[in-house]
Amino acid sequence: MAAVRVGVIGVGMIGQDHIRRLTRVLAGSEVMAVTDSDLARAKSVADSLPAARMHTTGQDLIRDSSVDAVVVASWGASHEEYVLACIAAGKPVFCEKPLATTQEACLRILEAEVAFGRRLVQVGFMRRYDPAYVALKQTLSSGAIGAPLMMHCAHRNPSVPAHYTSDMAITDTTVHEIDVVRWLLDDEIMATSVLTPRRNRRAGELRDPLFVLLEMASGALVDVEVSVNIDYGYDIRGEVVGESGVATLAESNVITVKRSGSFMGHVPVDWRERFIAAYDAEFRAWLDSVEAGVPTGPSTWDGYAAAAVCDAALAALREGRRQLVALQKRPSFYD
Amino acid sequence: MAAVRVGVIGVGMIGQDHIRRLTRVLAGSEVMAVTDSDLARAKSVADSLPAARMHTTGQDLIRDSSVDAVVVASWGASHEEYVLACIAAGKPVFCEKPLATTQEACLRILEAEVAFGRRLVQVGFMRRYDPAYVALKQTLSSGAIGAPLMMHCAHRNPSVPAHYTSDMAITDTTVHEIDVVRWLLDDEIMATSVLTPRRNRRAGELRDPLFVLLEMASGALVDVEVSVNIDYGYDIRGEVVGESGVATLAESNVITVKRSGSFMGHVPVDWRERFIAAYDAEFRAWLDSVEAGVPTGPSTWDGYAAAAVCDAALAALREGRRQLVALQKRPSFYD
Amino acid sequence: MAAVRVGVIGVGMIGQDHIRRLTRVLAGSEVMAVTDSDLARAKSVADSLPAARMHTTGQDLIRDSSVDAVVVASWGASHEEYVLACIAAGKPVFCEKPLATTQEACLRILEAEVAFGRRLVQVGFMRRYDPAYVALKQTLSSGAIGAPLMMHCAHRNPSVPAHYTSDMAITDTTVHEIDVVRWLLDDEIMATSVLTPRRNRRAGELRDPLFVLLEMASGALVDVEVSVNIDYGYDIRGEVVGESGVATLAESNVITVKRSGSFMGHVPVDWRERFIAAYDAEFRAWLDSVEAGVPTGPSTWDGYAAAAVCDAALAALREGRRQLVALQKRPSFYD
Amino acid sequence: MAAVRVGVIGVGMIGQDHIRRLTRVLAGSEVMAVTDSDLARAKSVADSLPAARMHTTGQDLIRDSSVDAVVVASWGASHEEYVLACIAAGKPVFCEKPLATTQEACLRILEAEVAFGRRLVQVGFMRRYDPAYVALKQTLSSGAIGAPLMMHCAHRNPSVPAHYTSDMAITDTTVHEIDVVRWLLDDEIMATSVLTPRRNRRAGELRDPLFVLLEMASGALVDVEVSVNIDYGYDIRGEVVGESGVATLAESNVITVKRSGSFMGHVPVDWRERFIAAYDAEFRAWLDSVEAGVPTGPSTWDGYAAAAVCDAALAALREGRRQLVALQKRPSFYD
Repeated sequence: MAAVRVGVIGVGMIGQDHIRRLTRVLAGSEVMAVTDSDLARAKSVADSLPAARMHTTGQDLIRDSSVDAVVVASWGASHEEYVLACIAAGKPVFCEKPLATTQEACLRILEAEVAFGRRLVQVGFMRRYDPAYVALKQTLSSGAIGAPLMMHCAHRNPSVPAHYTSDMAITDTTVHEIDVVRWLLDDEIMATSVLTPRRNRRAGELRDPLFVLLEMASGALVDVEVSVNIDYGYDIRGEVVGESGVATLAESNVITVKRSGSFMGHVPVDWRERFIAAYDAEFRAWLDSVEAGVPTGPSTWDGYAAAAVCDAALAALREGRRQLVALQKRPSFYD
Repeated sequence: MAAVRVGVIGVGMIGQDHIRRLTRVLAGSEVMAVTDSDLARAKSVADSLPAARMHTTGQDLIRDSSVDAVVVASWGASHEEYVLACIAAGKPVFCEKPLATTQEACLRILEAEVAFGRRLVQVGFMRRYDPAYVALKQTLSSGAIGAPLMMHCAHRNPSVPAHYTSDMAITDTTVHEIDVVRWLLDDEIMATSVLTPRRNRRAGELRDPLFVLLEMASGALVDVEVSVNIDYGYDIRGEVVGESGVATLAESNVITVKRSGSFMGHVPVDWRERFIAAYDAEFRAWLDSVEAGVPTGPSTWDGYAAAAVCDAALAALREGRRQLVALQKRPSFYD
Repeated sequence: MAAVRVGVIGVGMIGQDHIRRLTRVLAGSEVMAVTDSDLARAKSVADSLPAARMHTTGQDLIRDSSVDAVVVASWGASHEEYVLACIAAGKPVFCEKPLATTQEACLRILEAEVAFGRRLVQVGFMRRYDPAYVALKQTLSSGAIGAPLMMHCAHRNPSVPAHYTSDMAITDTTVHEIDVVRWLLDDEIMATSVLTPRRNRRAGELRDPLFVLLEMASGALVDVEVSVNIDYGYDIRGEVVGESGVATLAESNVITVKRSGSFMGHVPVDWRERFIAAYDAEFRAWLDSVEAGVPTGPSTWDGYAAAAVCDAALAALREGRRQLVALQKRPSFYD
Repeated sequence: MAAVRVGVIGVGMIGQDHIRRLTRVLAGSEVMAVTDSDLARAKSVADSLPAARMHTTGQDLIRDSSVDAVVVASWGASHEEYVLACIAAGKPVFCEKPLATTQEACLRILEAEVAFGRRLVQVGFMRRYDPAYVALKQTLSSGAIGAPLMMHCAHRNPSVPAHYTSDMAITDTTVHEIDVVRWLLDDEIMATSVLTPRRNRRAGELRDPLFVLLEMASGALVDVEVSVNIDYGYDIRGEVVGESGVATLAESNVITVKRSGSFMGHVPVDWRERFIAAYDAEFRAWLDSVEAGVPTGPSTWDGYAAAAVCDAALAALREGRRQLVALQKRPSFYD
């Protein structure tokens, strides 16, 4: 096979991590071009790579004939423009979440992709590549616990940076559960409510924790505890309740230590420790799909649905009551 | 010490199990008298015990001077009468749940006990004596995880008998969580909602599962999954989410077996297996408290609060919306 | 049923704990008589009990017609005399371990009991009543893991008192595994070796840890780690390796706590915490067997076999090489 | 960085898996040449790769100036010749275990490498790259459990192929524990014994299980259960017993399922599932070390020590008694 020749738009922390992944971790790709709103940074990154040139705009990079496929890791507001340009150029694009910052922008991308006639877009919902979630989905598919009726989730961060807002608890944090439960349960979210339990004094002015309810089209009910100042670690919990059994994400510790009156297992300190292998697997799958010409990962539709549910959840948080999620009809294109 | 001389009102399955506990399991008591609405059954039980006489009414039994303390295990509608009679007689009484079948009846008992001037009543909420719940409470009290903000519960039965109704999912099943979270969090329930997820096809006409939300006076939020046809076992889950940690009921298996590709631990088959030791500990504590003259277990107030919350939850289930719980002011008597 | 009327010989720490068990924990017995080499202590204990008289000798107590059954909890060297007297008097006797301090003494008891014509003696190996070991035995009997080929054990104490010797690591510590593996595997120990790994600096002059190998008649091999200064807790481990699976004692924690980067479960601090329920169950079974007239617990033969294996293990430790265990032929009486 | 240009000697199952790893999994290498005793197979593999030529002998491949580094995955008896040729050519070589089939051959390699003046050889002991073993080593190094006194290991295979012999239980199976305990405990093995417990009827004529004792220079004692027909799965257990605590390999399941009366976690079916990530990490580290010019993995000394211990264990198995391991003095070169 020939290496997939990749261009990277946006070389901040996330973009550079993807470049490291493409050049130092995974076989099968070559980074041919980079760009960034900070051109000095783009130049510095390009210089560090054996084959990469710098472009002054994302549009130029997308047009570059040495670029087969594009990674969009720039700030969210620019995603729509770059993804649309990739579709126009007929080039596969991996777009970090969010696909776009509004439902309307997501729908414009969706229309463009449908008009183009085949899938080009993968959205960066990496949890679908985590071995534990994959095993959970296999168990559900096997019928081992019957039809899913409920799912209990918890998304816990030890702390968040100063610029983190209560809205980000929905759009940056809960959004991972929003995508992963749609995928696990193979179901759409039709309504959402957000409850605000007793406030954590460690959380300052933030509404923390939140308790988000997601009502699926099938009637299945998902609850998500969102605790972003819980100190003890980065802990992602999930339990699907079926008709005749339950399936639960296990602890991720690799050893157990007994000392001082306790047995103990390690809890991850951050998302990187917990999901680094999922990011690698996500890019492995994307490169393979580019090579094969058949996209398989989270689609434009998934990006749109996540945006629509986040909008509803933000309204639910603001207004203190249940909100319906009004999705467009799904084009058969995405079945 | 002298043995506590006990009279038992109601010798159906539960009453007979308590008699077995008093005569065959625990030191320190003697069953002196029994009665039942079915006098033949009462006679048969009395005849099987070395020291017990039969009474034709509960009132007679309560008046019997050879009876120091009374166990009420008759059907719920009769509890009020017998507990009031015990208070009138100044005799300690262990009353199986519910304390009475209406809030109003509970309040009448409460007024009588306050008027009498000291506690005489213990209500049969046995989970407070389960070693796992006791350890959970100790962890909360120790401050090890900070103030409690949320609690996630699940109450799962493999199946329920044919006469079980959706209302019983509140009054017979969720009532255990209603009491135990009040005790664990040292807090009152101020409002409740009941959500009805996708129905379990194993459940016939029942609304099963339910998802019950309990809002505590402190702002802490409790959620309770109630699944009564889940087939795999009797599984009581609980996790308290604090400001800096969480505390969770562990699995109760005593051995692990590896075979056929899995490691496996046993899940209890029913409440008896899971809580038999808690029932024993509950009676041990009650006998000790009778001997010491200082009641320590779940009180009339606890019986009343549980009834009030159950009423609100039944209304929430019926009307499909959140209900406030309007408790009377708690007499300082119960502090 | 009438209460079993018990006499207790030896009211030191263990004897008093058994008296507490008989009078404050378990239904169905009455302590009628006590004695002790320290008569003042015996009198003080007798005075604290409603029905107990003091005897000046164990022989007097055994002859007392108000005593149906005897508990021997005096020091080891006196066991033989009292157990023989009980057999002579035809009274059931619960004898704390060791049954006697030499194999020869055990054999004298065995001959007396066989001559008497039915079992009267139960030896205090309480692990056979621990729910985890009971579940292990049930799993073995069920055939779920095939025939047992090996068993890995660990016996860990946080620390030992100053008078503890390396010999006691065999006779007071490993003796529990010696009995329990004979019972679990339904097999006799035919040879033993004792290895002395690197010494724990926390152990002072003691040979600690030890690694004891027990070769069963079936060929199954048992290894026992004996660590008596391991600080972190009292931890009893056991894993049976069968032909097609393994079965393992689970952790005994009842809750799990997550804080400070770890999830944690409690390890027992001492044998009391770990096995208190087994002691209660052991006495429950003994009282029931006395009432039924059919002894079921660890027998004189078990006491003898344990003594013989301990002797061999002491020789193995002293001489640094494997020792055969030469058991007498087992009388069919004990089948 | 430039890609490491690799030649692969031996393209049977293992060699082809390493080629897959180098070309389809890991960034940073290019396979430039292959050879095999089966030239047709070599040609077929070369043809499937974009840049690889076929050589008719390993010596030719090693001399090829387009080859920077060599992977030896041919049959064991040929290892010595190829590794010596790599040293003569001054090229880094990754040699699958065993380094060579006799202690003497290992020593010849050792002498050649010492004479050459810097390390070139890495031996394929991949467990050192398993995250669980790495965490175990970190815990030991941290002092969290004190000095290591014992280690309990189990190496369990569900079944073995028909050509598997009792000797292979040492040289192919236990050899992994032999290396990993040397590394974990940072200690040499000075003596070994092999016990033969009751035979597994599933094992036919094989001596299965074995129980291997390894005595470390520090006095620490390691025991290894080797069960190669245990049916239930591929299960690698390890527990280090320190002076004040223990550290244990955790289960590797990623989800837990509750159904049919049990909670269950998956046990790996084979070494591939359990250690595939360790093989990837091993090659990642090797490529990085080739690029950096500083070998860090298991050395020629480690290959030699493993061979010496295997020889002693084979003698111990054959003769039924403890064998000393007589290691040469370790050249400071390998400190």
